[in-house]
Amino acid sequence: MDLVTVLHALGDPVRMRLLLSYADDAEHSCAPRDLGLDHLHKSTVSHHMRVLREAGVTSTRVAGRNRFVSLRRADLDARFPGLLDAILAGAAAPA
Amino acid sequence: MDLVTVLHALGDPVRMRLLLSYADDAEHSCAPRDLGLDHLHKSTVSHHMRVLREAGVTSTRVAGRNRFVSLRRADLDARFPGLLDAILAGAAAPA
Repeated sequence: MDLVTVLHALGDPVRMRLLLSYADDAEHSCAPRDLGLDHLHKSTVSHHMRVLREAGVTSTRVAGRNRFVSLRRADLDARFPGLLDAILAGAAAPA
Repeated sequence: MDLVTVLHALGDPVRMRLLLSYADDAEHSCAPRDLGLDHLHKSTVSHHMRVLREAGVTSTRVAGRNRFVSLRRADLDARFPGLLDAILAGAAAPA
């Protein structure tokens, strides 16, 4: 897990929105509708999800024909202590 | 100062290197040589410095024909508590 790669992954408004969805630590389906991203093409959403996964921000569990995505919070916290908390707090703070 | 814009600015290896140079809180000249970036074209370095400045990560002081760049640590810490410290610690940690 590389710091610059993680920051690049999160330095995009769509991927930040995905992160905020995943921050409940639940598993999420990949349907754009479920992610509040139904204004985006499915392939665009897939691209952003791949960037997050390849950066190590999320993991994907495949179950039959479905995929479930969740935040790798423990791994991120272990590798970059305080980073995810600071980002989530910053995203929640008023501009 | 926008979180996604700051993360995007730091999600690049050259700009991360600049950040680490600026982390001493001194003023730095814009000469690529002084930044350990003399393998890059001057215009490339200027581009990366502009991205950092426009994101609010750095400020630039103009003195005669020279420009001096420094980290906006206090502003970043006030706006995104813990973020810069977590990033600098993560950059210093072994992979």
